[in-house]
Amino acid sequence: MPESPARPLGIALIGYAFMGRAHSQAWRSVGAAFDVPEIERRVLVGRDESAVAQAARRLDWQEHATDWREVIAREDVDIVDICTPGFLHAEIAIAALEAGKHVLCEKPLANDTDEAVRMVEAARAARERGQVAALGHTYRRVPALAHARDLVAAGRLGEIRQVRASYLQDWLVDAEAGMSWRLRKETAGSGALGDIGSHAVDQIQFVTGQSVAAVRGRLATMVPERPGADGPEPVTVDDAAWASLELSGGAIASLEASRMATGRKNELSLEVYGTDGALRFDLERLDELWFLDATRPVTEQGFTRIVVTEPEHPYLEGWWPQGHVLGWENAFTNQARDLLLAVTDRDPAAYSPDFEDGLALQRILEAIIDSDAAGGSTVRL
Amino acid sequence: MPESPARPLGIALIGYAFMGRAHSQAWRSVGAAFDVPEIERRVLVGRDESAVAQAARRLDWQEHATDWREVIAREDVDIVDICTPGFLHAEIAIAALEAGKHVLCEKPLANDTDEAVRMVEAARAARERGQVAALGHTYRRVPALAHARDLVAAGRLGEIRQVRASYLQDWLVDAEAGMSWRLRKETAGSGALGDIGSHAVDQIQFVTGQSVAAVRGRLATMVPERPGADGPEPVTVDDAAWASLELSGGAIASLEASRMATGRKNELSLEVYGTDGALRFDLERLDELWFLDATRPVTEQGFTRIVVTEPEHPYLEGWWPQGHVLGWENAFTNQARDLLLAVTDRDPAAYSPDFEDGLALQRILEAIIDSDAAGGSTVRL
Amino acid sequence: MPESPARPLGIALIGYAFMGRAHSQAWRSVGAAFDVPEIERRVLVGRDESAVAQAARRLDWQEHATDWREVIAREDVDIVDICTPGFLHAEIAIAALEAGKHVLCEKPLANDTDEAVRMVEAARAARERGQVAALGHTYRRVPALAHARDLVAAGRLGEIRQVRASYLQDWLVDAEAGMSWRLRKETAGSGALGDIGSHAVDQIQFVTGQSVAAVRGRLATMVPERPGADGPEPVTVDDAAWASLELSGGAIASLEASRMATGRKNELSLEVYGTDGALRFDLERLDELWFLDATRPVTEQGFTRIVVTEPEHPYLEGWWPQGHVLGWENAFTNQARDLLLAVTDRDPAAYSPDFEDGLALQRILEAIIDSDAAGGSTVRL
Amino acid sequence: MPESPARPLGIALIGYAFMGRAHSQAWRSVGAAFDVPEIERRVLVGRDESAVAQAARRLDWQEHATDWREVIAREDVDIVDICTPGFLHAEIAIAALEAGKHVLCEKPLANDTDEAVRMVEAARAARERGQVAALGHTYRRVPALAHARDLVAAGRLGEIRQVRASYLQDWLVDAEAGMSWRLRKETAGSGALGDIGSHAVDQIQFVTGQSVAAVRGRLATMVPERPGADGPEPVTVDDAAWASLELSGGAIASLEASRMATGRKNELSLEVYGTDGALRFDLERLDELWFLDATRPVTEQGFTRIVVTEPEHPYLEGWWPQGHVLGWENAFTNQARDLLLAVTDRDPAAYSPDFEDGLALQRILEAIIDSDAAGGSTVRL
Repeated sequence: MPESPARPLGIALIGYAFMGRAHSQAWRSVGAAFDVPEIERRVLVGRDESAVAQAARRLDWQEHATDWREVIAREDVDIVDICTPGFLHAEIAIAALEAGKHVLCEKPLANDTDEAVRMVEAARAARERGQVAALGHTYRRVPALAHARDLVAAGRLGEIRQVRASYLQDWLVDAEAGMSWRLRKETAGSGALGDIGSHAVDQIQFVTGQSVAAVRGRLATMVPERPGADGPEPVTVDDAAWASLELSGGAIASLEASRMATGRKNELSLEVYGTDGALRFDLERLDELWFLDATRPVTEQGFTRIVVTEPEHPYLEGWWPQGHVLGWENAFTNQARDLLLAVTDRDPAAYSPDFEDGLALQRILEAIIDSDAAGGSTVRL
Repeated sequence: MPESPARPLGIALIGYAFMGRAHSQAWRSVGAAFDVPEIERRVLVGRDESAVAQAARRLDWQEHATDWREVIAREDVDIVDICTPGFLHAEIAIAALEAGKHVLCEKPLANDTDEAVRMVEAARAARERGQVAALGHTYRRVPALAHARDLVAAGRLGEIRQVRASYLQDWLVDAEAGMSWRLRKETAGSGALGDIGSHAVDQIQFVTGQSVAAVRGRLATMVPERPGADGPEPVTVDDAAWASLELSGGAIASLEASRMATGRKNELSLEVYGTDGALRFDLERLDELWFLDATRPVTEQGFTRIVVTEPEHPYLEGWWPQGHVLGWENAFTNQARDLLLAVTDRDPAAYSPDFEDGLALQRILEAIIDSDAAGGSTVRL
Repeated sequence: MPESPARPLGIALIGYAFMGRAHSQAWRSVGAAFDVPEIERRVLVGRDESAVAQAARRLDWQEHATDWREVIAREDVDIVDICTPGFLHAEIAIAALEAGKHVLCEKPLANDTDEAVRMVEAARAARERGQVAALGHTYRRVPALAHARDLVAAGRLGEIRQVRASYLQDWLVDAEAGMSWRLRKETAGSGALGDIGSHAVDQIQFVTGQSVAAVRGRLATMVPERPGADGPEPVTVDDAAWASLELSGGAIASLEASRMATGRKNELSLEVYGTDGALRFDLERLDELWFLDATRPVTEQGFTRIVVTEPEHPYLEGWWPQGHVLGWENAFTNQARDLLLAVTDRDPAAYSPDFEDGLALQRILEAIIDSDAAGGSTVRL
Repeated sequence: MPESPARPLGIALIGYAFMGRAHSQAWRSVGAAFDVPEIERRVLVGRDESAVAQAARRLDWQEHATDWREVIAREDVDIVDICTPGFLHAEIAIAALEAGKHVLCEKPLANDTDEAVRMVEAARAARERGQVAALGHTYRRVPALAHARDLVAAGRLGEIRQVRASYLQDWLVDAEAGMSWRLRKETAGSGALGDIGSHAVDQIQFVTGQSVAAVRGRLATMVPERPGADGPEPVTVDDAAWASLELSGGAIASLEASRMATGRKNELSLEVYGTDGALRFDLERLDELWFLDATRPVTEQGFTRIVVTEPEHPYLEGWWPQGHVLGWENAFTNQARDLLLAVTDRDPAAYSPDFEDGLALQRILEAIIDSDAAGGSTVRL
């Protein structure tokens, strides 16, 4: 445990919808689970005074506020946690970094590459001052995925040759489900590709330790028009996306993301095949990692279902005895732990992914879109 | 949501080991997840001043204390949550009930039937005054098990004929693992049967809605001697237990509990077979309920893997979008929710299991022990 | 491959219902799959001339006959394969052995212990003359179960402590399903216990290499009366059975057999827990063996799904490339292989189970029935 | 059952390696399993006199021969079953059709499109004469896949939108595994794409009832050089292939085929997503079909594991009682059944896939290769 600072670290959280609730849970739990510096859940920020007041009470924050600019200027705020819609990320994050705060920004980093570039510039400058600029690709803190990365890094799979990643959901199957900001390009930037496909791309890079070097892509909008407030309205983002990715180490990865996969609720799945072994993971059974060790005797080979709940597994020192499984939300607490340790040490390099990783992801997603626009042909990064 | 009381409900938690940590998590989270009356995590109680002080800080309680008698006398404490070792349950629970407090007592209710009987008497008197005396068989609040109970209660399985329940762990496989209070009859009362078999019996009764009427049992101590402080010491409780149970509705249930099941980490599993359908559940995949509807066309029949994370499923209104799975700890928060609602309504009947259920469980476990002592012959309840 | 005899071995098969069809398939296939002495499917025997003639044509036998006594006297018949109902086993098997033939007798060996004892006597005498008397517990030839036995025999599980075996079917769930000879004690001898429970007991002994030393049992007839030709008729055998078995090596095994397990089609399942590892098997996925090696690093432990289709796996030298899975019927061909090799070598000791194993099984089943009649108390063997 | 012809149908089988063995098993078993016209396994054909003589004895054929031209001229041969390497298919099939025989040709239809076109022309002419020209995409006769097709055809999935198909094996993972004819373009035509990817494409079209209209593809040769007889030799076919397919009904299908997927033995998997339901299948568990009915109440929805062994399921009338699972080889027997019925009725339209389906498949595979050569851009069919 790093040396504790003079006073508890003050957290400000901006946004209290789905992600804001999940982050609140993490900030409430991190000190109970892990040896981290003391924190205070100082202030919750939202635009609607009465709603944010109620949310602050429910989610157990000391104060609430409606003006994020005032909040990031506060002396007693050390970390600004941004859970707003994506189009606000750049403005808030840059201001907070310039105000000397550490920042945790939910994914996607920004709505377009220009914004992302400016955020990266602000983060670079802040890094010189020891500030952390963290990106919330929380699934890196699911213990089974962290364990997968460790096994690959330790060489247990040998050389990686083939990766399969998919993220399948079904919440847009109903063609009568109405329009929303998530289905318009101007507000959402992208559809299934950006929203969930980005998680799959991040996992491909995280687990293999390789980066995407070239892509071929396809997008589809299966329900081209949905009921809007004033009658039928065109859907301007993708319902599903596919890509074939060349990785820097020579492996090929396939990617599939869909919100039209009937019966799939939240199925991020990953398969990694190497010369000496293989891995499989599925987010709907997130406590399990399936590992095949191809160096074992052939009569005993097969995928082993590892229940990733042993004290020796990543992050498990903070949780329950073996077999007492974790859920989706615990990864947010693990993320808060890692962030607090990096912040306390003022060591931005200790935390990833950072804003540069976010920019790189954005460029990959745009390359996939460009490839589809060009009939599927290769786009290099 | 019931009408809120004048001031927040004050909680006192006694004990801060494994169960105390899990209950703390629940008290921290319940207000964020559910529409419940406001609470305050008033005081954490333990014997060691410095340790309890540190625990109170980590687990986010307002105060700490070392004398539980003083704490249960406090005006600002409404609910006493008992997470001490079992031999202290009776004394604390009875005193707290007599002091007019609502009580949540971790399982097992007591170390022997005499104590349990006295606790039930105290609970009956308290019930007249509107106090809740709740028993912590938390697995009733795992959404998939609550959903299982609902399906049975709705008649979807028809008449229940056969039940299979087991609770398998492996933490005593190593014969060199040393003695502890859990392996001595005088301190633990019972071994695998009481510790984990009791959960399986509770689920059999909870899900089927039938009670155990007669038992045949077997106990075994597979490692009869383990290293103690002063050399080898006899293990005086069971490592594993088996029983065949006749249920009040005519069904037969089999029971198996073991701490010697190599590779099984925390595997409470339940199978229920009825004239019109069947159910399967496994605690290591606790978000899933497998349901077979035998009234469907035979070409389409089979066990359906229901991911119990829809808003319409029990307790899911408080949690995350579909497919964002819960873990072991969330059931404690669900339990806190139900308790708070019963407490606010001063309606002890709204909460189960209660102390009488705990006494009934104790009698079943003792009947199994008696049957084994009699060579396996039937013992009626 | 053993030296081939002067002329092909002649096979006579008595019975052409379910088991007769399965055995015919085996005799048709064994020479294609394995290096075995040449055989001829000489004659199929049944009581109904026209029906057996048609069956012989369909199942590809050279001849048919209606008098089994004449058939077992034929010079050109070497092996008599008995697939009749159980009450005819003793008479035919004893006569065939006395006529100098090798015998394969379907399970159960006999309808009662007296018959079984006489069969064992005949088999002992025949063994002196080099004749094989084989019992058809075919599941011993499912490759995954043979592999399980090999792993235990090689010490990979250490000392076996706990075994769980069950055989669950659902074909009697419907209370309106009519009476048949299988539901009357005088014709069937026993119900679920003898019919399918016997397979589970055989596997417990086969895989662990331990024998049953003492039992506690329970039987239940859940539908006590079913529609008969002349109105309701009592069911006089068990629908389901349970037992707790002490094994010769000190392990405890639980047994459960049922024809009332809604949705379970043919689910023989086995779990074996030892000091160094564990195994799981399920007949509905019979190409898979799940093996846990508890000596592996804890972060990589878990049940490994071995697809038992490698050339190095038992019996797989005769079948298809890896991953091209086998079905239920292939075990009969494997059984025919082993029998032919023992017959050619005139080495009865090379084949198991034999009639003595069948008698031992019968005594175990009767002990379970006796225990139930005595209220569940222990019966030693 | 169709009216039986005057004499048994005579079968000639050319080739006795892997596929020849599997076809022999089918011809030996089909009459026992199904109500089909009587057949005789007349003659097995191979180039090596002594080897084919031995094979004919083992595989139970009446005669053997070395000159396929003489065999297809025989009066007593009605069906010519071609299991030779692909480069011989065209010559033999065209000659056999011209000789008035029915033909079953193993996949792939031919080594190139020119050959395939000539085979289709011969088949068209033969069809006028009532001759069947069948292509051996045997997996269409796996009961679970036939059931899948039936469910889609009955509208149970609504409109199909998304399909995922993959065929993963691992037999080329070892970079030291030597060269063979399968790894040279001139002898094999194609690698993983043609050998196993073709099965996946056939299933996509078979189950959905839609045809491929346009493709985008990628090929990779992960081990570019392998040990040959005279030192390192270049591998000139693909080790793995990927494609994105537009189907005639508007659905998008993804395809992945690999011989480098460590730990995957023979994993053809299929997922189909429609507006009203979804399906999943995996060849390593080929008795199971997973079906999700999205019209069921949301609290009970999920993938149902249908064990496709009920008498009401496709082909199961010929096999064993429920839960007695089939293996890989049984599909060949089912295929023989369908072929015999079409032959007896002289109704070529009753059997699919035919040679035209084979040609269409070949064109799809070539389009994928062309797309990859063009950097992944779209190729329409």
